[in-house]
Parts: sequence; C-alpha cells; structure tokens
Amino acid sequence: MSALDALTSALRCLPGVGVKSAQRMAYHLMQHDRNGALQLAQALQVATQQVRHCTLCHTFTEDEVCATCADPQRNRSQLCVVETPADQAALERTGAYKGRYFVLMGKLSPLDGIGPKDIGLQKLFDRIAVDGEDAVSELILATNFTAEGEATAHVIAQALKGRGVHVTRLARGVPVGSELEYVDLGTIAHALVDRR
Amino acid sequence: MSALDALTSALRCLPGVGVKSAQRMAYHLMQHDRNGALQLAQALQVATQQVRHCTLCHTFTEDEVCATCADPQRNRSQLCVVETPADQAALERTGAYKGRYFVLMGKLSPLDGIGPKDIGLQKLFDRIAVDGEDAVSELILATNFTAEGEATAHVIAQALKGRGVHVTRLARGVPVGSELEYVDLGTIAHALVDRR
Ligand SMILES: [Zn+2]
Ligand SMILES: [Zn+2]
Repeated sequence: MSALDALTSALRCLPGVGVKSAQRMAYHLMQHDRNGALQLAQALQVATQQVRHCTLCHTFTEDEVCATCADPQRNRSQLCVVETPADQAALERTGAYKGRYFVLMGKLSPLDGIGPKDIGLQKLFDRIAVDGEDAVSELILATNFTAEGEATAHVIAQALKGRGVHVTRLARGVPVGSELEYVDLGTIAHALVDRR
Repeated sequence: MSALDALTSALRCLPGVGVKSAQRMAYHLMQHDRNGALQLAQALQVATQQVRHCTLCHTFTEDEVCATCADPQRNRSQLCVVETPADQAALERTGAYKGRYFVLMGKLSPLDGIGPKDIGLQKLFDRIAVDGEDAVSELILATNFTAEGEATAHVIAQALKGRGVHVTRLARGVPVGSELEYVDLGTIAHALVDRR
C-alpha cells in the first residue's frame, strides 16, 4: 500500500469520514498543508499519551483529578450527570451551576449494544456511595433530552431510589429532541433553575 | 493549552472540519480509538516524508516517476489533463484511455486567487514542448465541467494554439456542473470516445 493510500485509510478512523472525504483530506494535506499534517501527527501522539480520565468525575484530564473536581470553590454536595465533556462545557458556560460533575462519556443505547457497563454507571454509583465531606446530597440528571438520554436518566434515577440522594432532572426548558451542546445559554440556565 | 485542546485545534487543518466536528473527533479518538489515533499519526508522518510529485505528470508518487508514466505500454503521444489524482483514477477505471496524464493538482480560480502559476501550467507547457519519443501529438482536456474547470481548459487551449499539438476536450456526455470523480464509468467512457 502506498503512503498516500495508508494515510487515506488511517483517516477513516475519524467519525463521519468516509472513503471520499478521507481521500480529499489526504490530497489536501499533501498538496497544501504538510506542516498541518505534521502538527496533527504530533498532537495525536501527545494526546494519546497524556489524556486520561479524572478519577472523580471521569472526564478527560491530564492529571489525577481534573481542574473542576480540584476546585475548592465548587459545592461538593451537588453532582451533575452529563453525557460528554462538551455537554459539561455547555453547562459551565451558563455560570448557573457551582457543583461538581460526573461525565458518563456516553449514553445507554441498547440498539448499539451500549449498556450500563459501557458508560461507567457503576463508577457513578460508587461515587454516590461515598460518605464524609465528599458525600452527594443532590444528583442533577443533565443527560440529553433525546430518547437515549432520557432512558439513561431513567435508569440512573431508578437505581438510586432509596439511596438517600435527592435526584433531580433539568427542567424541560430544554427543547425535547435537541442536544445540550447546541442549546443557547439562557435556555440551559433557565432549565437549571427549574430542575425538578 | 491542554493536549485535548491542542488535538482539537490540530484537527481543524482537515478540510471541512469546523470547531464542533474537531471536538467530536478528538473525544471519539480519546474515548474509543487511541490505536486508530496512533496509526493516523504514523501515517501522517510517513506520507509527509515520502509523498512527492511525479517529475513527468505532477501527480503524487513516492518515486521519481509515477507508475503510470513509467509504464511502457502507455501511448506516449497522448496526454490527458486532469485536475486531481481522483479524476485521473476515475478515467483509469473506465479502461478507455491508454495514454499518459498531466495532473494539474488544482484549477484556475480567479476568485480564490488561484492563477496559472499555482496549478503548474508552465510545467504542462514545458511538457508539451518536449521533442523526440516523448513528444505529445494530442492533448485531451479532461478538467471538470464546472465553471472553473471550463475556464482552465479554455486557458490551456488558448495557450497551445499554433504549438503543433491537437487539443481536444472530453465530450459533453459528462453532465454539466458535475465533478468527474462522481460520474459513472459508462458516461466517462462515452465522453472519452466522443472527445472533440
Ligand atoms: Zn473531575
Ligand atoms: Zn507521472
């Protein structure tokens, strides 16, 4: 296989990139942006080596514990469950939440074979079980308002019944069927205040 | 900048990849496909190091001269001008052409500031000027049937007037406004036979 074919084939590991797009990308890099190609190669290697998961909230970080979890100003008794770091970032941009997070890094999706074990639910339940100053008194379910996000929220809420934690859900100010990361700040902020 | 942000930013060197897509790609690679990320890094480095241009036809190759130009079975007196290696591949798949190619690696696009110097037209004219056994008697213009492709074909045809080479254009069997790489084989083969 030629180096160009190998590159085209390797580019297909990117989500949403088919044969034609991969070929266009490979041609573009070789013809117009070899410097960008080398920077991308470098960034891929560094990230693969250094990015890991926060031991507390499961999001991406380069340290043992992420900056949000390490921040002493955050309310330790509130835990907000989101699907992805992008969703967490959307919530952070509202400035309306001062608690901590748990990032599922996915959602339940039975049709794709993604069950509770694949999205770290046990890790979440272990986190809820912690006593002492890190004890969680309120869990805010901020999974997306899609079928899978709702199912994920439902499964978590059911599993935590009688565990002494107050489980709330973002208010339906968020348009049904949409994904948090594309929702405007005001709507998200409102939904946070009206959580049920 | 974190390693993840650096990766997201580096992914934007890929054509058609905006901020949101880059972030999704970075998350996907870190969460689900670190092996793919490392393979892509490797492929980018190898390709950047090894891919260069054929000294005869200007297409990508890892050698001095590409396999098509080096093939003694190809008719040396016919030269087919295409915009990209993908277009050349589309013509090759028809099996209807046995001459050689010249790959412009672009097209004239005055609005984007892409002029004759940016797409190697001088190199093409030098190629046409060669005498002896590599002399070209027919030049087939197979640029795309888009506004820019037509303009490119027109400029080349004008420049070669009175240079003793027979200049033809793919027949309009190819639907106007479309790009060669997406056209079915039969249409391309027909257009080759009917070239004018
Ligand atoms: Zn954390
Ligand atoms: Zn060649």
